[in-house]
Amino acid sequence: MQSERRAPANSDLSFLFDPRSIAVIGSFRENFFGGYVIVKSLLKAGYKGKIFPINRAYKEVHGLKVYPSLKDVPQEVDLAMVMINARSVIGMVQECSGKGVRAMIVVSDGFAERDADGARLQKELLEVARREKIRIIGPNTAGVVNTSNGFNPCAYEAGYYRIRKGPIAIGAQTGMTNPQAFPYPNLRFGVSKICDFGNKCDVDECDLLEYLAADPETGVTSMYLESIRDGRRLLRIAKRVTKKKPVLVFKSGRTKEGARASASHTGSMALDDKIFDGLCRQSGLLRLEEFQDLFELPKIFASQPLPAGGRLGIITFTGAVGVVAIDVGAKYGMGLTKLGAETRGALDAVYQGLGNMPVDIGPMMAAVKNPFDDYPRVVEAVAEDSNVDALFNVLWANPTDIIVSSYLKAYERIKGRVGKPIATWIYGPDSEVAADLAKRVEEMGFPVFNTPEKCIQALGLAYQHSQTKNNGRGA
Amino acid sequence: MQSERRAPANSDLSFLFDPRSIAVIGSFRENFFGGYVIVKSLLKAGYKGKIFPINRAYKEVHGLKVYPSLKDVPQEVDLAMVMINARSVIGMVQECSGKGVRAMIVVSDGFAERDADGARLQKELLEVARREKIRIIGPNTAGVVNTSNGFNPCAYEAGYYRIRKGPIAIGAQTGMTNPQAFPYPNLRFGVSKICDFGNKCDVDECDLLEYLAADPETGVTSMYLESIRDGRRLLRIAKRVTKKKPVLVFKSGRTKEGARASASHTGSMALDDKIFDGLCRQSGLLRLEEFQDLFELPKIFASQPLPAGGRLGIITFTGAVGVVAIDVGAKYGMGLTKLGAETRGALDAVYQGLGNMPVDIGPMMAAVKNPFDDYPRVVEAVAEDSNVDALFNVLWANPTDIIVSSYLKAYERIKGRVGKPIATWIYGPDSEVAADLAKRVEEMGFPVFNTPEKCIQALGLAYQHSQTKNNGRGA
Repeated sequence: MQSERRAPANSDLSFLFDPRSIAVIGSFRENFFGGYVIVKSLLKAGYKGKIFPINRAYKEVHGLKVYPSLKDVPQEVDLAMVMINARSVIGMVQECSGKGVRAMIVVSDGFAERDADGARLQKELLEVARREKIRIIGPNTAGVVNTSNGFNPCAYEAGYYRIRKGPIAIGAQTGMTNPQAFPYPNLRFGVSKICDFGNKCDVDECDLLEYLAADPETGVTSMYLESIRDGRRLLRIAKRVTKKKPVLVFKSGRTKEGARASASHTGSMALDDKIFDGLCRQSGLLRLEEFQDLFELPKIFASQPLPAGGRLGIITFTGAVGVVAIDVGAKYGMGLTKLGAETRGALDAVYQGLGNMPVDIGPMMAAVKNPFDDYPRVVEAVAEDSNVDALFNVLWANPTDIIVSSYLKAYERIKGRVGKPIATWIYGPDSEVAADLAKRVEEMGFPVFNTPEKCIQALGLAYQHSQTKNNGRGA
Repeated sequence: MQSERRAPANSDLSFLFDPRSIAVIGSFRENFFGGYVIVKSLLKAGYKGKIFPINRAYKEVHGLKVYPSLKDVPQEVDLAMVMINARSVIGMVQECSGKGVRAMIVVSDGFAERDADGARLQKELLEVARREKIRIIGPNTAGVVNTSNGFNPCAYEAGYYRIRKGPIAIGAQTGMTNPQAFPYPNLRFGVSKICDFGNKCDVDECDLLEYLAADPETGVTSMYLESIRDGRRLLRIAKRVTKKKPVLVFKSGRTKEGARASASHTGSMALDDKIFDGLCRQSGLLRLEEFQDLFELPKIFASQPLPAGGRLGIITFTGAVGVVAIDVGAKYGMGLTKLGAETRGALDAVYQGLGNMPVDIGPMMAAVKNPFDDYPRVVEAVAEDSNVDALFNVLWANPTDIIVSSYLKAYERIKGRVGKPIATWIYGPDSEVAADLAKRVEEMGFPVFNTPEKCIQALGLAYQHSQTKNNGRGA
């Protein structure tokens, strides 16, 4: 990193995600929020940079010396994270500037999300920060995470767990996607970065997208937005980014009522929902339908190749799931495929009628003596069929060993060999058995989704993104 | 039950759900499907009626004598459950008739869902059954459950767990809602009846609705449908039933593509989706959006009073969840309420600004020393405010004892006292902690839903149903 005094470029958020040193400015009282938690979280996450706790009333926290003020710190500080009274924040920006700080994470609330006075304070905060050439995340943010360097200054007690490294980046206009709010160990494909924009007085969705586009650790970005700061800039940047990497967006404040509520808690203006829909279509942003999609749907991009077309293959234990899947597929322009003659013949030889789409294991299971002997071969044949662009596989989580091992055998056979996305749904009478099987399937690299609908949505978004990429190539 | 030989009325399904005796006709080989599983399941569920296994090749199963044929059974048989070759089923109907059997559950497949020959066979089956005055569920069904008498003849290995008695009935044109497919212990508000119509050659959604309307154990019905046998009859019956009890319906085969797939696996004709939408609106049927809703959304009716109006109260830890909730509420005509002056004053005295809707615990949590001391009082004040018709409560599942106990204290205070529905969503960094808290909250009688959106959907459907009931009263 350079040392001369300049404002970092918009897309250079490295002082925020990869600081060589951080000052933590706030209370260090043992609690489930604040400096005490942040310092412990950094230590537990294995952050290798320097940590400088700042507070006049403390001497030590977690074995680290607490400095009475920023200027007492004996070396340069890249980043300051502050949890002080809103009215003291501006003064702190000036102090930070004096110390050569490049960026600040302002956790403090009481700004535009509170009232008109807070909004004025936020405006002033931005002006001072711009003048002092300091980038700001927040105010009213829960902060950021970077798994590549153990930088997890989580402000809320979250159990101090380790987040697995992986390709999924999450940006949000809320703290609800930070480590204290979501069980990231369940996101087995791993995380690169997390960022809560808060009131996004400075760093916003566009800055983050540009930064993540160039971030080699990030393969897919998932974003929660309530407002768009600059629609034209987002359109321009998203168009460029989505040619390379998928970007999923869940936007709330879709209704008039929701938009009004959003304005009051982040102090931001909402965008008409139809305009945003158009923006997504034009720019290749993939629109999500509900909050949990932010964590669920990036899994398909984190682990699976894109489909070459919209021909959907389905292997199920009951017809109903097939019908549900086909309904959802139609929304994404995906339709049920027909298996090739060879595959159909091979499947019909296993059990008469098995070669029809959706491939229904149910009738065979009730009629054949050891139906699971043939199961891996059936999955392999369907997955390899060139008429299948994307595969939805349904597993009945029966605890019988022979069944579970035949599922795993099937995935073993196709792993890394078929070049098309596979989404799995697991159901059954025992949620622990189902959860354990899901874990094993995901550890093999195949994403498992909560519902049949989510499986198809995931494949549908992958198909949509593959079209965005191809259009780009053609243009 | 009467003994004279007549066809039971359409709505009299008591021979199917409450038989004094059952003949189980099929293989008794140890397996995860078939007679072996059914007999064991009946015994484990505590069925008090007589069980007569029928098969020439077996002498005994699970300590019960196996009879070589139905006519060897030394007493009357109410119900026969058959898992024999499709082509042998019609002969078996005649044998059953000779034995005085009133109803049959035909598990066998290979009928209209298979091919044209199977469709002809199904037609003939119905004709013979009508002539012999025998009611039929199926063919191609996974069967039924009645928790009030331990009647759970589950045909697939499901772990032989007990299903809790409760007010939720589930009817489906699939076996995907039977005990082998869903972990019913997680449905803590309990089940009255489960019924898989299968190909529904005889007993259908209308028959089941009429039967459940009169069933004192059933408070709410959830149905999965792919086709409607008789739209006019459904309209007529549903209109009557929904004045008394809520009926939730998830219908697949919504798209042309899905409908085609449905026709091929159940042999049934699908209905234009817009017509079905109109039917729901006219008849008060509550339409569901995805498969898992069948289990999730009845919980609100199983445990909570109906809302008197559409004014939504929200208690949350972050603004974002409030915005998401308000967006969904708008779809159901529910809007964010304003708290009364007294409540607002009381909350603002706890923490400045807390009295605004949505009530946001977040800022207070970061700023106040022991924020959870006041938490039960805050929830109580909001729940009791007469400006709140329905309450959405969000819990942050932090494992700290003091936090969990203050949540439980809050629910203790309002339990049975506020006369309005409360839906809870729980989120946090540890899924086990969240699941444990959800269990405790549900055991206290308050339903917890998987996502914030589902909470509001549940409250929205409750509001919709209250309007249906009130219109009925007014007319």
